[in-house]
Amino acid sequence: MPKQVDHRERRESIARALWRVVEQRGVAHLSLREVAQEAGISHGALQHYFASREAMLSFAMDFASEQATLRVGRGLQELGDRPHPRDVLRVMLTEMLPLHADARATSRMSAAYVLEALHNKTIHAQAHRGMAQGRVLVEQLVRQAIADGHIRPDRDPVTETNLLLALTGFTPLIELDVIEPQEALTAIDQYLDRLFTRNDHGQGQEAERSR
Amino acid sequence: MPKQVDHRERRESIARALWRVVEQRGVAHLSLREVAQEAGISHGALQHYFASREAMLSFAMDFASEQATLRVGRGLQELGDRPHPRDVLRVMLTEMLPLHADARATSRMSAAYVLEALHNKTIHAQAHRGMAQGRVLVEQLVRQAIADGHIRPDRDPVTETNLLLALTGFTPLIELDVIEPQEALTAIDQYLDRLFTRNDHGQGQEAERSR
Repeated sequence: MPKQVDHRERRESIARALWRVVEQRGVAHLSLREVAQEAGISHGALQHYFASREAMLSFAMDFASEQATLRVGRGLQELGDRPHPRDVLRVMLTEMLPLHADARATSRMSAAYVLEALHNKTIHAQAHRGMAQGRVLVEQLVRQAIADGHIRPDRDPVTETNLLLALTGFTPLIELDVIEPQEALTAIDQYLDRLFTRNDHGQGQEAERSR
Repeated sequence: MPKQVDHRERRESIARALWRVVEQRGVAHLSLREVAQEAGISHGALQHYFASREAMLSFAMDFASEQATLRVGRGLQELGDRPHPRDVLRVMLTEMLPLHADARATSRMSAAYVLEALHNKTIHAQAHRGMAQGRVLVEQLVRQAIADGHIRPDRDPVTETNLLLALTGFTPLIELDVIEPQEALTAIDQYLDRLFTRNDHGQGQEAERSR
């Protein structure tokens, strides 16, 4: 049992080294050799944990999603019992943006594996699965919010879900310093206020009237 | 003069070869040697046109923006004289998404150079400049649309501009087949209908009343 934990821990520390390589030196340097060097282990030792570049990348992607899920979970816990769906969506969206060191690492990994997916079917399938699962969660939330009267009943849940996920498009704008992180948060809040009935008085009243 | 045209043409054909390398084999293969091979010329011949990987990438980025600008220009011409700002924004947004072969190539280049920018200051500055210029154009359009009564006067032009640009976040969703291109277009149309007063009856009436 402790041996298995060690194995897992070592794989995670290699995954973190891989993230640093992507972040500091770029995807072009994403080889077993470079990652071994960054992790401070020999090439041979790394091969004990990952047989191929693809296996390593695949684990690092899953680990990045897990870490993002954990961060969202912690954010949701802070919201207390029965949080408002607007606040739940805000946590989910903001944890996908490069707004602090951990989220930056997983966001950059995500951008790297979207590019890798373009010419690698295994990575494409894995990245598709992860993103599609996230999409299902958001759609469930949106449908429930419509059923509970938090979102106007005339909104289409599929389209609203797609628009919410598209807001991760703030990522390159933040990474290239075209907009400030605070501007992205302001825009997301503005967007959520308009989507949900409670803070948008014009639409809120309309929703009230239509009930 | 003809010699200069030849030089430019040859550089453009090398840039297109570079796009194909990014698209088909990934950023990890983005070296002078790989691009020379894809362009069907010798490594030495390529170096006659580009002294370094960075110079080649920098040209390929500028060429991708130029091509995207030309596509937008053609799309705008089809709208005729005095097009509605909603239609102008729709052309700008959709040409940034990977919805057809040319747009896919420039969109993938764009994703690649955002990653490259993370660890290369020159590329960062160039990518920042390109995206910031695009942002200025969109903000001018939004401000004019507010002044002309096409967008409700209580909308903040900076936030609306940032939200519009964030919608390029459909790119990874389309690339990973999480949503269909048609779903992205439906969502963009829905979004623009709500932003502009003409097609959204609820908000349109409110805008009428407030005048």
